[in-house]
Amino acid sequence: MSNRLLWAIRHMDTCTSFFTDNRERFIEEWREFLRFQSISTDPAYDAACTACAQWTVKHLSGLGFASELIQTATKPLVYAILSGVPTKPTVLFYGHYDVQPVDPLELWETPPFEPTLRAGRMYARGAQDNKGQVFYFLKAIEALRASGVSLPTIKVLLEGEEECGSAALHAGLRAMGEKLAAQVLMVCDTSMLAPGIPTITMGLRGIAHFEVRVHGPHVDLHSGMYGGVVLNPLQALTSIVSALHAADGSVAVPGFYDGVGEISAEDRSLANAAPIDVAAMEKAVGVELRGGEDRFSIVERRGFRPTVEINGLGGGYQAAGGKTVIPTHGFAKVSMRLVAGQDPRATLDKVVAFVKSKAPEGVRVETCDEKVGGPALQVSSQSSVVQKARQALAQAFDREPILVWEGASIPVIPLLSEVSGAEPVLVGFGLDEDRIHAPNESFSLTQFEDGYRYVTSFLSRL
Amino acid sequence: MSNRLLWAIRHMDTCTSFFTDNRERFIEEWREFLRFQSISTDPAYDAACTACAQWTVKHLSGLGFASELIQTATKPLVYAILSGVPTKPTVLFYGHYDVQPVDPLELWETPPFEPTLRAGRMYARGAQDNKGQVFYFLKAIEALRASGVSLPTIKVLLEGEEECGSAALHAGLRAMGEKLAAQVLMVCDTSMLAPGIPTITMGLRGIAHFEVRVHGPHVDLHSGMYGGVVLNPLQALTSIVSALHAADGSVAVPGFYDGVGEISAEDRSLANAAPIDVAAMEKAVGVELRGGEDRFSIVERRGFRPTVEINGLGGGYQAAGGKTVIPTHGFAKVSMRLVAGQDPRATLDKVVAFVKSKAPEGVRVETCDEKVGGPALQVSSQSSVVQKARQALAQAFDREPILVWEGASIPVIPLLSEVSGAEPVLVGFGLDEDRIHAPNESFSLTQFEDGYRYVTSFLSRL
Repeated sequence: MSNRLLWAIRHMDTCTSFFTDNRERFIEEWREFLRFQSISTDPAYDAACTACAQWTVKHLSGLGFASELIQTATKPLVYAILSGVPTKPTVLFYGHYDVQPVDPLELWETPPFEPTLRAGRMYARGAQDNKGQVFYFLKAIEALRASGVSLPTIKVLLEGEEECGSAALHAGLRAMGEKLAAQVLMVCDTSMLAPGIPTITMGLRGIAHFEVRVHGPHVDLHSGMYGGVVLNPLQALTSIVSALHAADGSVAVPGFYDGVGEISAEDRSLANAAPIDVAAMEKAVGVELRGGEDRFSIVERRGFRPTVEINGLGGGYQAAGGKTVIPTHGFAKVSMRLVAGQDPRATLDKVVAFVKSKAPEGVRVETCDEKVGGPALQVSSQSSVVQKARQALAQAFDREPILVWEGASIPVIPLLSEVSGAEPVLVGFGLDEDRIHAPNESFSLTQFEDGYRYVTSFLSRL
Repeated sequence: MSNRLLWAIRHMDTCTSFFTDNRERFIEEWREFLRFQSISTDPAYDAACTACAQWTVKHLSGLGFASELIQTATKPLVYAILSGVPTKPTVLFYGHYDVQPVDPLELWETPPFEPTLRAGRMYARGAQDNKGQVFYFLKAIEALRASGVSLPTIKVLLEGEEECGSAALHAGLRAMGEKLAAQVLMVCDTSMLAPGIPTITMGLRGIAHFEVRVHGPHVDLHSGMYGGVVLNPLQALTSIVSALHAADGSVAVPGFYDGVGEISAEDRSLANAAPIDVAAMEKAVGVELRGGEDRFSIVERRGFRPTVEINGLGGGYQAAGGKTVIPTHGFAKVSMRLVAGQDPRATLDKVVAFVKSKAPEGVRVETCDEKVGGPALQVSSQSSVVQKARQALAQAFDREPILVWEGASIPVIPLLSEVSGAEPVLVGFGLDEDRIHAPNESFSLTQFEDGYRYVTSFLSRL
């Protein structure tokens, strides 16, 4: 056993004791953090958001950080820095203090902003997403400092608008420049594959969307008098939308896959090694997992392949029974998930141009609400930061972590990685049972301690 | 000039004088008929419907008919018979005494059931559809009797549910048997191509409908986590629905055109002779007339070719902005207009089977609300009854009538024609400006007199 590993284990033990010794205080402080009604989507909670940010600034000061509240046009940002050993790679930790709305309130067993411990789980809005995962990070820093580990410089950036579009970050991130410069971007806003299975998220897909509207006659027409006379805009719409996909499940838009690389043998092997229970997933969603491109496995389709999805479709008569009209218009809401190598704007433009090119004569095709969410994030499995995280998790959990390539999007992370120059490492301890965004959100003390153990292990290895 | 023609003209003149002499009384009686709030869709007006039917029975008695009210499970039918010369072809006149609802009431300039004459037009619900067109028929009978013309046996059948599905007729028509036996089926529930242009409706399309539902996951799924994993039911729906039509605008369902004959040279020539103002129609509807099958003209597409139309489409997120879900299901409401030679049930079955055959793996496709409205009606341009109507109209209006093949459906007429054994002749004097089914419905005294002139001319020629 190397000296370095012995040293790490000793420090881990110290941190574990520190957790046990301070458990009640940690829980009490966590409750304080959870009591703020920091719902970002509803302006009625603006003051609560600011109060929560102020509390966090103060808490970071108490941990030894130089911390500040950064006012923005929308919700304030929390920024803090703790100077450390200059030879170690600087860490930028990103999280958010805002939470989702709480409705339907009547389904909560205990009030969402009165944090309640039941059977080892803390129930509150934000218990996991993201206050719980932010707070184990902060408590891990406290433990590491108390145990005397020499730390790298640590920067903390918490936003208050993750749940509603990250407006302040998108507007101001590039201007923050040097403040964000780092080598490692730590994000603890993800999940484990299953309880106790440490999981590194290696990728997130990018996102863009738009709406297509097909306009026909300017009033609903009688389908007897005008059927076969006027082109039905819903017939045109379905022909346009169905042209987006080929029979093999691939996207049929020319150039859509430009820049999308082959999956490396190593990534393919790592991704497919994730213990996916297809039968359980199919049971949970109620259908066979038959979407996407035939020639890829489920995890490959989700993690490495872009998609075009129809999120909504409408037009004409939708109530009970029938009504024989040729309606004035129809629409489809379309979104795409993008992967590494795809430029979101250019890809969106190609899909929009394709849709317009399919417009038949006799209707007018319009696109609107074009929106680029952000590009994909793909972490290399060769990344030294990922290697460190793998080692840290293997040691802390006594098993090799699973690497997963997620299909969802957190558009601000690729941007943060780009602006800070840091290599991202996404490790979180969420589980489906936490019910984030839903009534009775919770986070178990076990998950909290798992997170704490990961952070202490990872940071002490840098 | 033949004796017969001279005789006809003399009788026409007598009938014209009779109209002039009795104009005020006719208008007063018509007002009485229009005052009944015989809205058939709303049970609140059941008593008004019955009162209207009773008034009509009495009015027919006054004209010399043996008339009766036939109770049914729904609205009563009015039946009347006036015995005439046995060597002449028996006439069955079909009409309806029920009317459409009147909402939005606030848009009426005068109350819908207080018939008001303004600038030569009678404003009231039902002024045209169908009380106005029934009433000129009755007044023409009165005039013919007063003028001493020898009439054929005339049967009158008025229903009270034309605006809501003709339930009583569909249920009881076959049981009426001999009561309906006739050689000529007169219907005055159609329109003129333009003011003063006598128009014979030669065809009506049949109709059938159904709804297709595509079921995917049993809860809305996150399109990041499940995009490319689960087949999006809206993608499946658009691919199924778009397969219904080929690129040339024809219906792509195997066997859909079974039984559909070529258009005869004479019908083609007559139909295309109708003075259709394409530019005016395009202006009125706001789009180019680019629907249906490329290889047919507009009037051919409408009158002689069947269609499949999407009347409604829905699924997923439809409100403002975007929501990145893979929705649980989507649906399309589909109707078809049928032409002579197509069996409605068999054709519907083929379309439903086709839709099911296109179901991709990973979703469940269901069809429901299957409904056969009725078959098409196509009158031969060789029909002796049509020839008589052409002559009658040519004489009464001093111009050749236009023959039109309509695209709409009146499902009870093919059934009535079949049960009665009578050849249909559809001549009506409606115009777009009458605004039937809409606020401020009206019928001009000129149109009323046009109808009266047609009926007297036609019946005196039989």
